[in-house]
Amino acid sequence: MKISILNIGDEILIGQILNSNAKWLSEKISSIGADVIRHSVVKDEKNAIVNELDYLKNISDIILITGGLGPTKDDITKDTLADYFDSKIIRNNEIYNNLVTFFEERNKNISETNIKQADLPDKCKPIINKVGTAPGMMFEQNGKYFFSLPGVPSEMKYLTESFILDFIKNKMKQNNSRIMIYKTIRTFGIVESNLSDLIGDYSFLNGNSLAFLPSPMKGVRLRISVKSDNYNQGITEINRIKDELFRRIGKFIYGEDDENIIDKVIEMLINNNLTISVAESCTGGMLGAAFTDIPGSSEFFKGGMITYDNEIKSENLGISKYTIEHFGAVSEECANEMAKNIRLKFNSDIGLSITGIAGPSGGTAEKPVGTVWIGFSDKNNNFAKIYNFGQIRKMNRERSVASALGILYNQLVKKQ
Amino acid sequence: MKISILNIGDEILIGQILNSNAKWLSEKISSIGADVIRHSVVKDEKNAIVNELDYLKNISDIILITGGLGPTKDDITKDTLADYFDSKIIRNNEIYNNLVTFFEERNKNISETNIKQADLPDKCKPIINKVGTAPGMMFEQNGKYFFSLPGVPSEMKYLTESFILDFIKNKMKQNNSRIMIYKTIRTFGIVESNLSDLIGDYSFLNGNSLAFLPSPMKGVRLRISVKSDNYNQGITEINRIKDELFRRIGKFIYGEDDENIIDKVIEMLINNNLTISVAESCTGGMLGAAFTDIPGSSEFFKGGMITYDNEIKSENLGISKYTIEHFGAVSEECANEMAKNIRLKFNSDIGLSITGIAGPSGGTAEKPVGTVWIGFSDKNNNFAKIYNFGQIRKMNRERSVASALGILYNQLVKKQ
Repeated sequence: MKISILNIGDEILIGQILNSNAKWLSEKISSIGADVIRHSVVKDEKNAIVNELDYLKNISDIILITGGLGPTKDDITKDTLADYFDSKIIRNNEIYNNLVTFFEERNKNISETNIKQADLPDKCKPIINKVGTAPGMMFEQNGKYFFSLPGVPSEMKYLTESFILDFIKNKMKQNNSRIMIYKTIRTFGIVESNLSDLIGDYSFLNGNSLAFLPSPMKGVRLRISVKSDNYNQGITEINRIKDELFRRIGKFIYGEDDENIIDKVIEMLINNNLTISVAESCTGGMLGAAFTDIPGSSEFFKGGMITYDNEIKSENLGISKYTIEHFGAVSEECANEMAKNIRLKFNSDIGLSITGIAGPSGGTAEKPVGTVWIGFSDKNNNFAKIYNFGQIRKMNRERSVASALGILYNQLVKKQ
Repeated sequence: MKISILNIGDEILIGQILNSNAKWLSEKISSIGADVIRHSVVKDEKNAIVNELDYLKNISDIILITGGLGPTKDDITKDTLADYFDSKIIRNNEIYNNLVTFFEERNKNISETNIKQADLPDKCKPIINKVGTAPGMMFEQNGKYFFSLPGVPSEMKYLTESFILDFIKNKMKQNNSRIMIYKTIRTFGIVESNLSDLIGDYSFLNGNSLAFLPSPMKGVRLRISVKSDNYNQGITEINRIKDELFRRIGKFIYGEDDENIIDKVIEMLINNNLTISVAESCTGGMLGAAFTDIPGSSEFFKGGMITYDNEIKSENLGISKYTIEHFGAVSEECANEMAKNIRLKFNSDIGLSITGIAGPSGGTAEKPVGTVWIGFSDKNNNFAKIYNFGQIRKMNRERSVASALGILYNQLVKKQ
């Protein structure tokens, strides 16, 4: 069952907003095993919409259109669809009554503009919208189905969950469609090309696909996609491929699907009843911000020091002046002392530190921009690792945080 | 100049990630006056890509393709483009040398998989990627231009900013294209509806448009859009509208376009030769992270303390136990002490503090979730302001940072 998603809206095309409706629809539709083959976004103009529909109906079974419906819009979408499906626009009584009830229930007066929303193309099947005023519309042409939904996320979601997902499921059953099943495996501490080399021969995929999705903050995710005649058969195949991946690269895998490394780290901190504090230089608070992003972080996070200035490093965090003078603030020695001192000062079980040259300036031949030392300290260990994350300040800082979490993860795993 | 953006990537179509590349590209391209007419997303499959290119080249002058380039085996974009443009894939020496340098600079070994990235279609003009390993490619066919960029955001952005935007600008000049010009005016400390009331009558727009873009971190931005035959005429009209807006709401305007309130704050700190340090509780490092996001922040930012735990507040930042016991950690008294103590401890001219209840738990009837005190201290002043930012943790934290910057901005403006 091939599904295309068409969004109508200038605000997406000028980059004012993200196309989050398409993401949400894709996620829901994929989760029932249907195949989203295409997103497109066009302007709120008749020709653009018509051309797109002509194209989409040749490659899709179902077309979902969002946006361009609503009380203050020019309603180009509705007029365009009426013409496209050779319809007249007439008052729909069911929708009219529903609109009247909608306003009555909210103790609001219904305006002329709102009443117009009950005027619909006569060839559409209207879909009642209980959370807003613009109804959905369904058209059929030569066995292809077209749905038009408002762009307001809550209304689009309501219509999808109350009607469209079931409609797609039923069509798939009727047509004995093949389904797609996905599973994401999350890795950390290894780059895409090395993972690929480790996996080596891909024949175990048996024609299914494996995609690599790298991200500086999340590591490389591997997405398995399996096409199958039925759900159980698909899951068996997913599990077979997953097991094979665990055999080959298991030590880099930290989770599946939506799990993030920080969630894993926090789970292990709490399970082991451990507290942590941080000492940050080049990341200036980002590591602390990452920990405290999670509700309930006061259970394990005590706090930290942002020792951006070298004077602060020595005067307030107690890094020895000898270390700073002889090895520099970006050094193994300094990272080690930062991790240890914050742990002791803040009376936590673990201390984690980051000190580096985020750039764009401040690099030398010996310590180029992107050089970062990350330190770890607990009652048994005190060590630091060096990284080079390249020239871009933002990326340096993000990767520093991600790598600090990676080091912490590796240490906590040992305690499991 | 009509631009289409094509993303190749199953991860967008199954709803795993948002199409943030398309948003970023749209914003940049719109800002130089070119017209983004279409986004589309297709699968990483040869037929899907070829059909899409056939369609796009009929309606666009320039086609930007992102995704589907990278070191691993799931990338078929390059092969598809080679076929599409009747090219052979051959080793490109310039790109090869650049790759070798890239790995040398990072002290890493180059793998076979990486070396393959120097094998490119012979009809493309490669675009050197200094922040990653996948080069960009440019193809020309019958006066239409096709750019293929990697999907990793930092690499896509680098190639766009180092090459593509200038390329589009030059083409627009050569073709005397009708252009759209945008100007964003940034305001702070006033909500959307009040701004709209103050502006009042909109007839001065003369048919051009003004959009309101509210954001908790950035205040309300006003975007002026003007369509014009030439750049100078468009700029004159933009300036006329801008001047009128300054007359009506000037005292809320702090900057234009990409200027953030933090840029303004930093400019004033540096001009006044002032240093700052921060004490953060519920934001856990976000305020420090915001200051250090800016290159050169060591000129004015000394550091900070993340006093998440109350024990840390008293033991390490020296907040009196009396204050915490009698007024609580989320109180005017505590915010005042935090700002003053961090200023004195870190020997800076200004201390800024944030203490609040980010939620979802921890609220009481008297101090509900969302209650935040923000404190300021310099040698003449020490005060704190209370806010309530509502129930959502993420939004609470973001608004706390934005409001702390707002308080600092207001104090610094007085020194101007």
